[in-house]
Amino acid sequence: MTHQEMFEFRTRGRGTSDITAHVAAIVAQCAAAAGVAHVFVRHTSCSLLITENADPDVRCDLETLAGRWAPDGDPAYRHDLEGDDDMAAHARTVLSGTSISVPVKDGRLLLGTWQAIYLWEHRTQGHVREVVVTVLA
Amino acid sequence: MTHQEMFEFRTRGRGTSDITAHVAAIVAQCAAAAGVAHVFVRHTSCSLLITENADPDVRCDLETLAGRWAPDGDPAYRHDLEGDDDMAAHARTVLSGTSISVPVKDGRLLLGTWQAIYLWEHRTQGHVREVVVTVLA
Amino acid sequence: MTHQEMFEFRTRGRGTSDITAHVAAIVAQCAAAAGVAHVFVRHTSCSLLITENADPDVRCDLETLAGRWAPDGDPAYRHDLEGDDDMAAHARTVLSGTSISVPVKDGRLLLGTWQAIYLWEHRTQGHVREVVVTVLA
Repeated sequence: MTHQEMFEFRTRGRGTSDITAHVAAIVAQCAAAAGVAHVFVRHTSCSLLITENADPDVRCDLETLAGRWAPDGDPAYRHDLEGDDDMAAHARTVLSGTSISVPVKDGRLLLGTWQAIYLWEHRTQGHVREVVVTVLA
Repeated sequence: MTHQEMFEFRTRGRGTSDITAHVAAIVAQCAAAAGVAHVFVRHTSCSLLITENADPDVRCDLETLAGRWAPDGDPAYRHDLEGDDDMAAHARTVLSGTSISVPVKDGRLLLGTWQAIYLWEHRTQGHVREVVVTVLA
Repeated sequence: MTHQEMFEFRTRGRGTSDITAHVAAIVAQCAAAAGVAHVFVRHTSCSLLITENADPDVRCDLETLAGRWAPDGDPAYRHDLEGDDDMAAHARTVLSGTSISVPVKDGRLLLGTWQAIYLWEHRTQGHVREVVVTVLA
């Protein structure tokens, strides 16, 4: 019993957007007793992550650290066709990943109390991002 | 044929704990001919990883590097409600990830010879951590 | 309906190799209407990633950044049995991950236009790497 849906999400430039409700709604539709919800972005400059949903400073600090892990406009980069944020966005995507997966029980995501699912836009400009959710049960 | 179980694991503070036997025992119960074992932690300050099981120095060195990737008590952090290790723990969790997944064949994890599954506690204090294992077959 | 295959891939030393066609061929065989393709390496010093397939400079720059995330021969390392690239390879594997997973629709990988699946060899010498593909549908 596999259920798959795609949705589009419009980002407003660099930063995180909580997409937990979008994913939970798709999971609820198939009412699986037990399974895994797999979430995937069809892009190489935005990523998915699970992190704390209480204090927004956590995601602000993640952005600060990402700026060290893969700085904008680093002089060592050869790939800079689309600007200073281009290669930085690809590298941050590799570190955070293009998919996350969460166990499902009785039609609900088995997230912990403080966990939420975020789409992390790494480009400075906003983009329309395609997200594929597959519920395996 | 999906099999799902949750177990609790008590950590002793920052460091890695081998949970391969816990996962393998759950996988063995459902005797799947072929599938994937998905392991998930319901937390934002501990993570899962697969790494070398032979020389414990590998995990010691990973801890050293994690201290550079996301230092404790960095002056740039805004989120420090629970101490110097709070934001560092969230960031390390993002880098290492809240889930890992391993192929299953004939009721056994298809890990390589040198691979083991570790729970990585990123807080300095020990915690009771909830781990969900879902075997998809 | 689970389909699982293993293949060997010979790397030529540090760098990325596009294995998308290998994975797509396995996915095509089982013609799943909807599912997820899970790809796994049975090693602790090479990893899998999804990144841009157009400009090879992207993967060159990822290599440059990986050299900062986990430098070869860092004096802080305790694990150096197999040379300067040994611990660096383990750490880069943790950051990039031993598995990736991609949604499948109508027997095809639902990758975005610019996405490809790469095997990332982190050792300076080439190795024969075992890759397990499991299609869950």
